[in-house]
Amino acid sequence: MSGDNGPAPAVSASLKILAGHPLLSITLVGREADITPLISSADGSLRERLMVLHVPDVVGMSDKPSQVLRNRANTSMSAALQLVRDGHDACVSAGNTGALMLLSRSILKTHPEIDRPAIIKRIPSSYNLCYVVDLGANVDCRAEHLYQFALMGSAMVEAMEGKTSPKVALLNVGEEETKGNEQVRLASRMMAESPSLNYSGFIEGDSLFKTDVNVVVCDGFVGNVALKTGEGVGRMMAELLRQQFKVGWYGRLVGLLAAPLLKRLLAILDPSRHNGASLVGLTRTVVKCHGNSQVIGFECAILQAMIEAEHQVPQKVYARLDELL
Amino acid sequence: MSGDNGPAPAVSASLKILAGHPLLSITLVGREADITPLISSADGSLRERLMVLHVPDVVGMSDKPSQVLRNRANTSMSAALQLVRDGHDACVSAGNTGALMLLSRSILKTHPEIDRPAIIKRIPSSYNLCYVVDLGANVDCRAEHLYQFALMGSAMVEAMEGKTSPKVALLNVGEEETKGNEQVRLASRMMAESPSLNYSGFIEGDSLFKTDVNVVVCDGFVGNVALKTGEGVGRMMAELLRQQFKVGWYGRLVGLLAAPLLKRLLAILDPSRHNGASLVGLTRTVVKCHGNSQVIGFECAILQAMIEAEHQVPQKVYARLDELL
Repeated sequence: MSGDNGPAPAVSASLKILAGHPLLSITLVGREADITPLISSADGSLRERLMVLHVPDVVGMSDKPSQVLRNRANTSMSAALQLVRDGHDACVSAGNTGALMLLSRSILKTHPEIDRPAIIKRIPSSYNLCYVVDLGANVDCRAEHLYQFALMGSAMVEAMEGKTSPKVALLNVGEEETKGNEQVRLASRMMAESPSLNYSGFIEGDSLFKTDVNVVVCDGFVGNVALKTGEGVGRMMAELLRQQFKVGWYGRLVGLLAAPLLKRLLAILDPSRHNGASLVGLTRTVVKCHGNSQVIGFECAILQAMIEAEHQVPQKVYARLDELL
Repeated sequence: MSGDNGPAPAVSASLKILAGHPLLSITLVGREADITPLISSADGSLRERLMVLHVPDVVGMSDKPSQVLRNRANTSMSAALQLVRDGHDACVSAGNTGALMLLSRSILKTHPEIDRPAIIKRIPSSYNLCYVVDLGANVDCRAEHLYQFALMGSAMVEAMEGKTSPKVALLNVGEEETKGNEQVRLASRMMAESPSLNYSGFIEGDSLFKTDVNVVVCDGFVGNVALKTGEGVGRMMAELLRQQFKVGWYGRLVGLLAAPLLKRLLAILDPSRHNGASLVGLTRTVVKCHGNSQVIGFECAILQAMIEAEHQVPQKVYARLDELL
């Protein structure tokens, strides 16, 4: 309900994914009156695996997360998380990130040694598998939080990718140990001293897509702005590329010939295909998609949630954190 | 002297720019023994406009800026800034950013109402003219600093681009006023209440390249990581694009035909052509280029310094700050 585009893209994506996955069932949580018309044309075999839980109250994008936690216990977001607590395998939401983080922590709980869940996502790099954490759940982090993100990121990469002792780096404005602000320098010392981490030092933003590091740790404010800026550059480049092949008869001719190649490239790079970031540190699977997600964005996020639930990623992360902490 | 690649690229760039600008003269500040061999082959008319000031001590990339300020008064960086204080028009450096900021402030002074100079740069957007401030001089900012960056950014855009009442936004993880950390929310209120600013609210990273905002304000840590991440995406996309046109006979054929179009596109996007960011808030021109700059990066930075000095940008910014504050 609480994404920028209302329930329609989430419902369309659910129907598409249900059609392709006969063992899946989905509960849509929100205002029945808004949802029912969107599913009325779905065929019977899908409708059997598609429930609707009516909850009238919706967390708004501009609601203050701490107030949502105190005063808005009966929103569609909290109801969806309660379903997961009570037996559903995963929750997907495009709503208010801060509220999703606080409600998840309150309803689903984190590992006892972890203060706050964080948002983690694999970045689209052809070079290596690399996850970034945090991408916006925590916009004000002390050194201990960054250290916990490193542990959670390591456990996540082990659980998702089967990679042992993943290489961890801390995002900073320079690679030298004197660079950065106080919390980053302190976190770096904590990570370097930890026997639980394979820590390799600082990394700069321009190296994210050509590094052999598997986990990049940052404050949620920094990570969110950096990844979104990267998406903005990607979209601008795609647009400039299209323009090159529209100018003059030669450009248009080459554009026609190059179309299949460019289509493939633009599909690889399309940010909406890289949608769906996981909340890590919780006891169950919660996937956050972009507030402005369209159908394809929700599809990716649902698939991400299915993979994590099927492979019991939160349970594995929890067990690994038990060993690390 | 203090960039990652030593003096060679700075010297080559100086010779190239001197050849194209007969009224320009340049002083190279650093270790004479390292510099002299690099200029020995330059022709006589250039040598007349190329001075060398021998200073043996060099600020290292991993030197702590505050210690540089206390104990390293006689480095090539401080000597270059002293030349500017004493009559040279501008300084260009690829050295330690934090040290350059503190030494500039100490030697060249800022406007009395400005605490710290900030790094500002126009981003390569085809959509609109947009400057981002701060890009790494200040990695730990309170709300008042962000507010000062907004004033300096406005004054800079007016001086450089002749645009009156430029539109200002604050970089954040969301557009709603409840989003972000405490210092960003407080700075937003200060900017909204200021009669000196044309403030339009928060902006997210993915909108930077398609916005009608002229000044985007952020903490130097965030700005540095975000812009470098954008560069990383740009380089990765350029590489993927090249790869598309190398696979199979069809790809190679189309690649051959598309080569002139792609060359033009990649030149537009090449981050090294967008090198050279200004320190704003000082009484004179100081341009910082990337630590890893090569010849083309230094050329861009020297040209940027020439433009600012020729148009008396720091003086205009200073006068405008007098009116705004």
